[in-house]
Amino acid sequence: MNKQQLIDQIHQKQSFLCVGLDVDLEKIPQHLLRKEDPIFAFNKAIIDATHQYTVAYKPNIAFYEAYGLKGWQALERTINYLNEQYPEVFTIADAKRGDIGNTSTRYAKAFFNDLAFDSITVAPYMGSDSVEPFLEFKNKFTILLALTSNKGGLDFQSFENTQHQQLYQKVLLESLQWKNSEQLMYVVGATRPEYFKEIRKIVPNHFLLVPGVGAQGGDLQGVCKYGLTKDVGLLINSSRGIIYASTESDFAEAAAFKAKVLQQEMASILAQL
Amino acid sequence: MNKQQLIDQIHQKQSFLCVGLDVDLEKIPQHLLRKEDPIFAFNKAIIDATHQYTVAYKPNIAFYEAYGLKGWQALERTINYLNEQYPEVFTIADAKRGDIGNTSTRYAKAFFNDLAFDSITVAPYMGSDSVEPFLEFKNKFTILLALTSNKGGLDFQSFENTQHQQLYQKVLLESLQWKNSEQLMYVVGATRPEYFKEIRKIVPNHFLLVPGVGAQGGDLQGVCKYGLTKDVGLLINSSRGIIYASTESDFAEAAAFKAKVLQQEMASILAQL
Repeated sequence: MNKQQLIDQIHQKQSFLCVGLDVDLEKIPQHLLRKEDPIFAFNKAIIDATHQYTVAYKPNIAFYEAYGLKGWQALERTINYLNEQYPEVFTIADAKRGDIGNTSTRYAKAFFNDLAFDSITVAPYMGSDSVEPFLEFKNKFTILLALTSNKGGLDFQSFENTQHQQLYQKVLLESLQWKNSEQLMYVVGATRPEYFKEIRKIVPNHFLLVPGVGAQGGDLQGVCKYGLTKDVGLLINSSRGIIYASTESDFAEAAAFKAKVLQQEMASILAQL
Repeated sequence: MNKQQLIDQIHQKQSFLCVGLDVDLEKIPQHLLRKEDPIFAFNKAIIDATHQYTVAYKPNIAFYEAYGLKGWQALERTINYLNEQYPEVFTIADAKRGDIGNTSTRYAKAFFNDLAFDSITVAPYMGSDSVEPFLEFKNKFTILLALTSNKGGLDFQSFENTQHQQLYQKVLLESLQWKNSEQLMYVVGATRPEYFKEIRKIVPNHFLLVPGVGAQGGDLQGVCKYGLTKDVGLLINSSRGIIYASTESDFAEAAAFKAKVLQQEMASILAQL
């Protein structure tokens, strides 16, 4: 998928919502556990119910790896289902990978070619040659961790140099120099809306993937105030707040309702653009 | 495994060698491709041939993920084989994971409980609550990326604050404050031997996992000069230099020979302790 196709989908659905598929067998409706592949059954129901309000899906790979071979199988089924049934949707492998060059190429092939995700999240700590192998794949996006939404996010990301430049700013600035940097997006947590103004000075046009709305307490309006661009430029992720809206047999309808509420809030924000 | 068992093994084998099991189907002897599970067949032969010279094995998870379900199956077989046949050996899942708290717990369970690795490599960018979930597992070790051996390693790791403290130093210092920090080890690349003196001032006793000897050009003597502790405190990794020593039918013997050369160099270094 290219950037324009993502933007077109956003305008068409009047949504920039991303749903995080972080499937925990202890939290899904218990009747699904009798299915042959409960994780996929859950994902399929959630996707079918929410896709009209949603432009992106983001399985966090940890939740699949935790179930070993069965987890990988469910991940394969989920991404295949998305690519076959809803090819307009943007898919994100939330993997937070990053390794030395030849090894990053392995991860890139696994997620971009074999699993056919549109994008992957990558950690910047190991520097340029750990990220550039991902950027070599055309029409694929690499979503670099910049400023994360978790409590410890500022432990290192706010580390500041003599020019009052913080590490997350250095990561943003430096990454713009990398080859194919137009295929970068960035993770910026919704729990830190005050940072978006500063971030947009450095990356005025790149898409930002924004986790932390909902269960983590982030604020959609606050994020949009400084984060929105003329091309929207935001993907707002909600995981638990949507997929676990109900643990009963109405879980898919409840998820759709939660997604719709967010979509409508987004539509009204887009109307003011 | 606890730290003393690792130290005992080092003294017994007179070796602090770690062999990286980074299996690439294009590089292994082609006759193995006819086997039902070529990756495991290769690993088994390498392990059987090198274990007397080797205290640790480190599969880089990217190489297994790249082969999808078959890769995971080969990884499971490899770690099970190690744990059953050579329980004295220290095992490292080179995964470079790291995510928000509840997600890191997923990764920790997958690698420590289900796959039963002794340790895992973890990236520090997301801070304390992305690493502490790994440290909750008793007799398991979390190997934090500090100063990596790749070309781009210094892009961010040498980022310096007003007190001339670099990011990798901040990571070392800060991590010592985390709960169960005695279960930390650190990745420090052999390509930067001049840094070991500084690093030992901050972490005088923790084990360092040192990649980059061999194919990446790192220098064993240089690393040992400043890196060794009274408990040895080093695991020196070699991957390609050992496992691809030959691509013919003698590959296991060739790997054993390369491992033995390194082990003997290590034995002579240990004799001077």
